[in-house]
Amino acid sequence: MAKQFSVNDILQFDQRYRATFINSLGGFKSLVLIGTINKKKQSNLAVFNSFFHLGASPPLFGFIIRPDSAERHTLDNILSVKEFTVNHVNESFYKQAHQTSARYPQDISEFDATSLTAEYKTNFAAPFVAESNIKIGARFERRVDIIENGTILIIASIISVSLPDDCILEDGYINLEKAGTITCSGLDSYHKTTRIARLSYAKPNLPLAETDEVFERADNTNNQIKQKNKEQ
Amino acid sequence: MAKQFSVNDILQFDQRYRATFINSLGGFKSLVLIGTINKKKQSNLAVFNSFFHLGASPPLFGFIIRPDSAERHTLDNILSVKEFTVNHVNESFYKQAHQTSARYPQDISEFDATSLTAEYKTNFAAPFVAESNIKIGARFERRVDIIENGTILIIASIISVSLPDDCILEDGYINLEKAGTITCSGLDSYHKTTRIARLSYAKPNLPLAETDEVFERADNTNNQIKQKNKEQ
Repeated sequence: MAKQFSVNDILQFDQRYRATFINSLGGFKSLVLIGTINKKKQSNLAVFNSFFHLGASPPLFGFIIRPDSAERHTLDNILSVKEFTVNHVNESFYKQAHQTSARYPQDISEFDATSLTAEYKTNFAAPFVAESNIKIGARFERRVDIIENGTILIIASIISVSLPDDCILEDGYINLEKAGTITCSGLDSYHKTTRIARLSYAKPNLPLAETDEVFERADNTNNQIKQKNKEQ
Repeated sequence: MAKQFSVNDILQFDQRYRATFINSLGGFKSLVLIGTINKKKQSNLAVFNSFFHLGASPPLFGFIIRPDSAERHTLDNILSVKEFTVNHVNESFYKQAHQTSARYPQDISEFDATSLTAEYKTNFAAPFVAESNIKIGARFERRVDIIENGTILIIASIISVSLPDDCILEDGYINLEKAGTITCSGLDSYHKTTRIARLSYAKPNLPLAETDEVFERADNTNNQIKQKNKEQ
């Protein structure tokens, strides 16, 4: 049976219940760890579930920070250092990722508190998560204040990407399942995925085709060719 | 083996390859159909994968529109009518959801073109997707122009929610898997999910507990009580 809620029903929910309910309504979400550092070289790591794609040319994304939460340190560090990292979460360390949402004092690094490994690269200040399979180096572009509720949209550009070689298909698609990336829902629920299908580019009056097999096959053929070349 | 890409590598990708690659980098995404109508009562339906949670008090969300794409009609209708619907996508109609991304002329409704059913409710102009299990009625609050690439952030508030009664747990969490909600990655890949676990609220120096069984059990007990009350 379908249940209906008006905005008044929702506003009368207990605050914690409402937060859980409304957070669930957004569907499955991107789950990333954002790594930052301040000018005193203190690192910080925080889990976010509001990462969203903004554009490919130039490569841009956005995410939301709540300055009244543990996310405050992430905001301060990004505004001061202008560089940060975005790391996909894998099943092997999702509990550690969740634990970074606890309110640690500023002088405690969540890397130390959760035993995740900070990985530093040449010419880049902020720490990556060594355990993560897909890692993005990002540059702060602009903040947009969301006056409706005091949150802040961070707009950033992608300046480097690291990911497993065998997860990139023929057409540029990244097989996230092969890379072990997981997703989340609500405030605290973690999920792995199973692909249903990839579909062809949609045009009016043209039937859709499932394209995943085509690309996987092309990819396997390529890998076999690469393997053969290596063996020779 | 990890492969590294600099921003220069990425900018030299073929345009289509880059769009596929960068869209994949965002991880798994929220997948919704947005239903709108114009003042001539022409309906429109379009698939979006950038829905994100903004806040619970008041209930707010955001999503990104590309005005140079088929999404233009959605933008025009939202700005003119100020009301629209957000409908979760289920596996039973994901191909129809994908097909709404084709560039149909303005006088063709994607509801008709894809055989999805427009459902109208009293005192609300925009059409819901009857086939969808989780449906949100939304009110336009503000547009934010993303000057970096000409996209537009729509900020909206939630004014009604409809969802299956048995998918709401004890604490307000919505069991999206039970509701059949699916997720997507890249531009064209669709995935179903399997829950790994729900975790307790994180605090420094406190071990995390898996809470899902607690809530599912509480929920089943409640349902048994409700069932018993009905029978009496």
